[in-house]
Amino acid sequence: MRITILGNNSAIPACGRHPTAQIVEIREQLLLVDCGEGTQMQMQRYGIRTRRIHHIFISHLHGDHYFGLIGLLTSMGLLGRTEPVHLYAPPKLEDIINIQLNAAATVLPYELRFIPIEDDDSKMLINTPYITVQCFPTEHRIPCHGFVFESKKGGRVLLPEACKTYEIPAAYYARLKEGADYMQKNGELVKNEWVTSDPPPPQKYAYCADTLFTESFLSHIAGADIMYHESTYLNDLAQRARERFHSTALEAAQLAQKAGVKRLLLGHFSSKYEDLSVFEQEARSIFPATEITQEGMSFEV
Amino acid sequence: MRITILGNNSAIPACGRHPTAQIVEIREQLLLVDCGEGTQMQMQRYGIRTRRIHHIFISHLHGDHYFGLIGLLTSMGLLGRTEPVHLYAPPKLEDIINIQLNAAATVLPYELRFIPIEDDDSKMLINTPYITVQCFPTEHRIPCHGFVFESKKGGRVLLPEACKTYEIPAAYYARLKEGADYMQKNGELVKNEWVTSDPPPPQKYAYCADTLFTESFLSHIAGADIMYHESTYLNDLAQRARERFHSTALEAAQLAQKAGVKRLLLGHFSSKYEDLSVFEQEARSIFPATEITQEGMSFEV
Repeated sequence: MRITILGNNSAIPACGRHPTAQIVEIREQLLLVDCGEGTQMQMQRYGIRTRRIHHIFISHLHGDHYFGLIGLLTSMGLLGRTEPVHLYAPPKLEDIINIQLNAAATVLPYELRFIPIEDDDSKMLINTPYITVQCFPTEHRIPCHGFVFESKKGGRVLLPEACKTYEIPAAYYARLKEGADYMQKNGELVKNEWVTSDPPPPQKYAYCADTLFTESFLSHIAGADIMYHESTYLNDLAQRARERFHSTALEAAQLAQKAGVKRLLLGHFSSKYEDLSVFEQEARSIFPATEITQEGMSFEV
Repeated sequence: MRITILGNNSAIPACGRHPTAQIVEIREQLLLVDCGEGTQMQMQRYGIRTRRIHHIFISHLHGDHYFGLIGLLTSMGLLGRTEPVHLYAPPKLEDIINIQLNAAATVLPYELRFIPIEDDDSKMLINTPYITVQCFPTEHRIPCHGFVFESKKGGRVLLPEACKTYEIPAAYYARLKEGADYMQKNGELVKNEWVTSDPPPPQKYAYCADTLFTESFLSHIAGADIMYHESTYLNDLAQRARERFHSTALEAAQLAQKAGVKRLLLGHFSSKYEDLSVFEQEARSIFPATEITQEGMSFEV
């Protein structure tokens, strides 16, 4: 699993920083999480191909989290896309997209499958043999959701050369992945561990979107390998953060502690801060495994 | 009058080029003409302060001409603007803005004065003692308008030092601007040309927006000091240009000739072209006073 940052700023673009957008790469799928203005240009800059995106998640309808979506969807159409796009978002976004497509007399050449996330939804959005994605409500000025991305523990991983050496037929591969040994025609046993390796461990990434400091969604994010949490302000502005339904770097670190996550990523910085290293310092004072997100950075789980 | 290019690309952002947006500076006012995605970031990059913008003109509702508007308007609000913004645009844009403001529970702290431009409108939008702005319909796939910006011939320009030398009272300055001489108390005549200089000549900029090659709006753009015309394609794709209601560089040059304009600016280049110099070459073959627009360039009338 890998998280790539396309934008890390809150509200107004500033100091050369773009509004929120991230790519979550999980089992070779690219998932787009939020889509602030300029996201399609940022994808070009960092070599993310739009045709690899099949699922888009929008946390809430403040513009710094979705104003780049209509441009991205339109460009996908102009590029001749035919594969569907699944869009998980607050219900009103469907009207916002349609009114703009209609005004341009545009019919997308691909299917836009809209999956509404209602105000208090806490539900499974994707559940395949390899991954799950769930949403949970955060506490913000308007309805807002975080997302938990998990890769499942898969089957054992085949070692192609070894399978060939023991002349194991492809039809038997599914059983090997389940851990079975193989009996050769000459009666000799091929032990499973000779032809497979351990499956990759399950991984968990929790994206906490915009929220004030709260433990209300602790159960959803507990034990994550990486947790992304907003830190719009430093803690000397904790009062302002509360008033605006945002958090501070210290609060994010407190939640990371309580949730027992392994690493904390900070983002959604207010435009008033030019130097971001102070966010890292503040959070590390109580949660050392903290990193600030910067555009173009990738974080491997 | 000065035109500054913030974006010059058509449809999809590509080759590091942004979609259409321009600043027209005229008698110390900054007017924003079209507002593709990323315009607010481009304004930051090129040092254009949003608070100096009071009038915004949107040619039509294809996204590459307005997807950056909602972000700009929202940012103006977040920056605490209180002065009104005048928005001249197709009627549907008002709904598109309102649905997005409502979804975010946002109330702008300034007045957004919406001035609708109906499909076939050809009318005066601004008429002050110093400038006029008129719109005219172009021929595009959806209703689209060009704009003509003109500075009026003002009064004669006072020479402050000379006025002081001859002790002319400030109350008489308005008459000086009209060209009157001044009689001193001692009976000696001060000739107008001793204390004023010639007024700046009136100037005309024609922005032809998106359009197929047509002479239908020739009367509006005739004699312009500078004409901006789209050239989405080169002339070997004239057929494709027609089908998509766009123009070629050669067609833009032909119109410049017929309209008797002094200079031609080309823009709105298709993403398929990385090298733009060929557009200039093609147009200059019949209209030598042609320049291509590039982001960050300013053109003085």
